Amino acid sequence: MDMITNPMEIENRSFEIISSELEGKEFKKENANILKRVIHTSADFDYADNLFFSEGVVASAQNTLRNGAAIITDTQMGSSGINKRAAAKLGCEVLCFVDSPEVAQIAKESGHTRSREAVDYAARTVAGPLVFAVGNAPTALIRICELVEAGVLDPALVIAVPVGFVNVVESKELVLSLKAPHIVARGRKGGSNVAAAIVNALMYEITDRD
Amino acid sequence: MDMITNPMEIENRSFEIISSELEGKEFKKENANILKRVIHTSADFDYADNLFFSEGVVASAQNTLRNGAAIITDTQMGSSGINKRAAAKLGCEVLCFVDSPEVAQIAKESGHTRSREAVDYAARTVAGPLVFAVGNAPTALIRICELVEAGVLDPALVIAVPVGFVNVVESKELVLSLKAPHIVARGRKGGSNVAAAIVNALMYEITDRD
Repeated sequence: MDMITNPMEIENRSFEIISSELEGKEFKKENANILKRVIHTSADFDYADNLFFSEGVVASAQNTLRNGAAIITDTQMGSSGINKRAAAKLGCEVLCFVDSPEVAQIAKESGHTRSREAVDYAARTVAGPLVFAVGNAPTALIRICELVEAGVLDPALVIAVPVGFVNVVESKELVLSLKAPHIVARGRKGGSNVAAAIVNALMYEITDRD
Repeated sequence: MDMITNPMEIENRSFEIISSELEGKEFKKENANILKRVIHTSADFDYADNLFFSEGVVASAQNTLRNGAAIITDTQMGSSGINKRAAAKLGCEVLCFVDSPEVAQIAKESGHTRSREAVDYAARTVAGPLVFAVGNAPTALIRICELVEAGVLDPALVIAVPVGFVNVVESKELVLSLKAPHIVARGRKGGSNVAAAIVNALMYEITDRD
């Protein structure tokens, strides 16, 4: 097989193919890199119709990331997919509390999901601007919305891209009316890989990746 | 929002929805749980047409996993998505060498990709039956095929589900003619999440998950 094997060449060629197949689709230039990276990670062009960006979200999110933020994921898989070198260069840290013994204990006592309690835990314990990257848990999204509406959480960005068949669509629709900046994959599709791709796309426009 | 929040209830209801929407699609009963879990992780019914299973692969893979195997992933994200408790109960370990400094050094010297060298490293250093779960790197798949054809690697299972636009389709088509047992997502779609979902689906039929 005659192949390109240089990772950056492969990625550049992939983005050329994606750009070419996106011709005719409407999207704002400022959101293009996120859309393309999500398609790159999923090979699924449905995202051209599914991804929703609140007004000015990319500029505001990049401004936050540039000054160092805590990026909170709802799964270890989401955390794994985020480029830690790029995050470190920006002074950002990537945190996931869903498997922490403390959160597990709180969830056991409250009867709520660990995903929900992990949001409360992050809101309570993490200083500085918070970026939530939610690719799995509707209960995490719903809790974020509740805390924002109660005035006790003011996230710099909510990435709302859980995948699935139960509570997922509804929880993402809730985020659409959130005053906080948000990026939402409407419908059933999404995932931890998509959440990580969105964070990486935001970072790669403003820093080196390695 | 009136919601089911118990994770197992959510999963059961999700699988009911998936089963119902799969009606009319043709697939072997023995492969059904893998197909459904891949759709569960992606919300993408294209996999009903894309997933290819070699003859008897599920029974042979489960026989291997039941007796303890090394599950080798090509990304940390794939490794993150595999249920470690279920793996431990079966006596399986989950390994990923792509970020190992030794593999990085070998790749630097050889000029090959780290993904390819990670396959050689696993083949050379890991004892016992090997299950490869490849959700990202075409060069890993191609190297597995080369080593099998050279008679120096005899994997118990090759999960061939990279996602992407360059080399991806071709590398997966190569695996289809491999004598070793394989599960392939034909076309562009796949990913580390899909690779992990396939491993988990195989394990969940033969052990508890927690």
